[in-house]
Amino acid sequence: MTSVVTLTTDFGVEDAYVAAMKGVLLTRCPEARLVDLCHAVPPQDIRAGALRLAAAAPYFPAGTVHLVVVDPGVGSARRAIAVSAHSHFFVGPDNGVLSLAADSGSPAWRAVELTNRAYWQPIVSTTFHGRDVFAPVAAHLACGGQIDDLGPWLDEIEQLQLPRVTGGVDEIRGVVLDVDRFGNLVTNIRSADLGERPIRDVTAGSAQIMGLSDRYDPAARLVALFNSDGWLEVAAPGGSAARHLRLGVGAPVRVRFAV
Amino acid sequence: MTSVVTLTTDFGVEDAYVAAMKGVLLTRCPEARLVDLCHAVPPQDIRAGALRLAAAAPYFPAGTVHLVVVDPGVGSARRAIAVSAHSHFFVGPDNGVLSLAADSGSPAWRAVELTNRAYWQPIVSTTFHGRDVFAPVAAHLACGGQIDDLGPWLDEIEQLQLPRVTGGVDEIRGVVLDVDRFGNLVTNIRSADLGERPIRDVTAGSAQIMGLSDRYDPAARLVALFNSDGWLEVAAPGGSAARHLRLGVGAPVRVRFAV
Amino acid sequence: MTSVVTLTTDFGVEDAYVAAMKGVLLTRCPEARLVDLCHAVPPQDIRAGALRLAAAAPYFPAGTVHLVVVDPGVGSARRAIAVSAHSHFFVGPDNGVLSLAADSGSPAWRAVELTNRAYWQPIVSTTFHGRDVFAPVAAHLACGGQIDDLGPWLDEIEQLQLPRVTGGVDEIRGVVLDVDRFGNLVTNIRSADLGERPIRDVTAGSAQIMGLSDRYDPAARLVALFNSDGWLEVAAPGGSAARHLRLGVGAPVRVRFAV
Repeated sequence: MTSVVTLTTDFGVEDAYVAAMKGVLLTRCPEARLVDLCHAVPPQDIRAGALRLAAAAPYFPAGTVHLVVVDPGVGSARRAIAVSAHSHFFVGPDNGVLSLAADSGSPAWRAVELTNRAYWQPIVSTTFHGRDVFAPVAAHLACGGQIDDLGPWLDEIEQLQLPRVTGGVDEIRGVVLDVDRFGNLVTNIRSADLGERPIRDVTAGSAQIMGLSDRYDPAARLVALFNSDGWLEVAAPGGSAARHLRLGVGAPVRVRFAV
Repeated sequence: MTSVVTLTTDFGVEDAYVAAMKGVLLTRCPEARLVDLCHAVPPQDIRAGALRLAAAAPYFPAGTVHLVVVDPGVGSARRAIAVSAHSHFFVGPDNGVLSLAADSGSPAWRAVELTNRAYWQPIVSTTFHGRDVFAPVAAHLACGGQIDDLGPWLDEIEQLQLPRVTGGVDEIRGVVLDVDRFGNLVTNIRSADLGERPIRDVTAGSAQIMGLSDRYDPAARLVALFNSDGWLEVAAPGGSAARHLRLGVGAPVRVRFAV
Repeated sequence: MTSVVTLTTDFGVEDAYVAAMKGVLLTRCPEARLVDLCHAVPPQDIRAGALRLAAAAPYFPAGTVHLVVVDPGVGSARRAIAVSAHSHFFVGPDNGVLSLAADSGSPAWRAVELTNRAYWQPIVSTTFHGRDVFAPVAAHLACGGQIDDLGPWLDEIEQLQLPRVTGGVDEIRGVVLDVDRFGNLVTNIRSADLGERPIRDVTAGSAQIMGLSDRYDPAARLVALFNSDGWLEVAAPGGSAARHLRLGVGAPVRVRFAV
């Protein structure tokens, strides 16, 4: 069985680093189907990488291998891991970047530390484990190899801590987690944080937005809605909420309920 | 039979939106061959999307499915459509973005409105029809499904209106339609607009260019030529005509004939 | 046998030029597996293209076809070539861009000039040989066609001249060849230039870096190391050496030995 291999990195596309990884993948698993998940993760931004992976991974077929290299600790003592979860594999550094998508709540969850050098490139650089460790390991899994071959089991992996939603009966408070290409402000507030309480208004920076929309209503200057990944988002239809409101990652967002 | 699926969006590559669409495509049609046509369409710029699609689509093999998501009206009443033309399929919103490539002059032209939810994702968001409607429909067509399955026939689709070339016997006037990465100024003037009349000069901004070139002559500061897509183009060999002349989309261009 | 085809261009991804080339490739060799090597080569920067190609090409499987279009001389008298070297094929303009990867020291090296129009598109534009000449030729090779079909043998191809490392017993001097996405300064100094001499310090701009590191040590402000491609590199772990030191391509770098 051959699989899809997705690639998520902070390498950008200006250089040939991603291509070197793809060369290793296709040399070791010629039938692997390679898909770029995202290479524009800001350099060494583990949280941004984890969010992008978690947004797209669930849409891929069973057996997909997700190769993730956002790795500020390359060459240090940080562990390299592979995880089996949700019928997918995840390969990368153990710094939390895999933890949102490869969550241990999944049935048959299993993680291993990558220690078996037999599945790595013959020469391993100290600065490019994406090419020399993670790509060959991903190729092994994509071509039907066993995760148990790769190293000893782990009981847990590093967890990424997202900022928590706080608040009480009348209101909750979150923060902007991410700003997408359109300037939409994606927060850490999910539908479950609301329970049954209807929204009265959403405050982000200088803006107070009444109620919740279900789409990017072109007649509205600003809307608040739950986006296609389930996060509360503040958007300026046809424009950029980030620019209009001069807000970015970390900006506070408040939701008040109609009680 | 499995097909190539091209993807054209204004999503950029900073986020994971394109990857989510590819996941849906590969889940539903594992053998589809995915090719990025362009994801750098300026946000919600229907004309730029239509031009990029029309430039590359003719070079793809018969049976290719072109999935296009430049969709400012997502969630509104705009129709979603699939079109069969020139032995290719085109899937996207009915806002004109498909109309240059999927023109109704093609033999056996057929268009349908996407209404049959059986071919969509089980849960359809209001803000990401690229993932939830267009990608599964494209997968259906790529894996040999019938266009007639998808919804009722349409007699016509929304047409994009490009600015017209005007003028008379002595000269014609057009505008810059697009500026490419090299700063070449691509106009709306085609060879057929000249007829048999030889060009005397081309005026763009402060520049008057004598005659027509057949290549990017490095000895010339500026040249006018018909580019590889058949549009009249003003170029600065080795440099950027857009920057040299401080011109962009919409700038007027005049062609005078040697009569 | 079908092969991987990599694509390296200075076309960027804003336009549809790369997609048109992929359409031609898939029309002529439907089973070719397309991989973007790099499309962010700075416009007409032959050296940057050659370096990126040389960095990634060795990791691809035998039989891979590398299609390279960094072609300031398109439409002029510059030759178009195909080269067989290191069990790979290389197709592009004969301006040196292929010469680092397709070096003639390889056993069974062979080069041909592309003159046989039977393997080109029926209509060849003067401005887009990537689509009309190089892509169809690459498709021919990817689908098992013979290099000898394409035109007459060449004894040599244009060689790219990289700046030489100079110096003597106590020190050597090189220059910055490239700056990668992370702001790492990649020089033209290779391990062989050191011989057995241990490094005392590396000077780049205002910085004097003591000794050599083997990784991006987060405790260090600046490090000098041999990177994953074997070049001496000056890096600022967690930051950008290019920005910290205000240095770019061409900046001098000096290595002094502990003698």
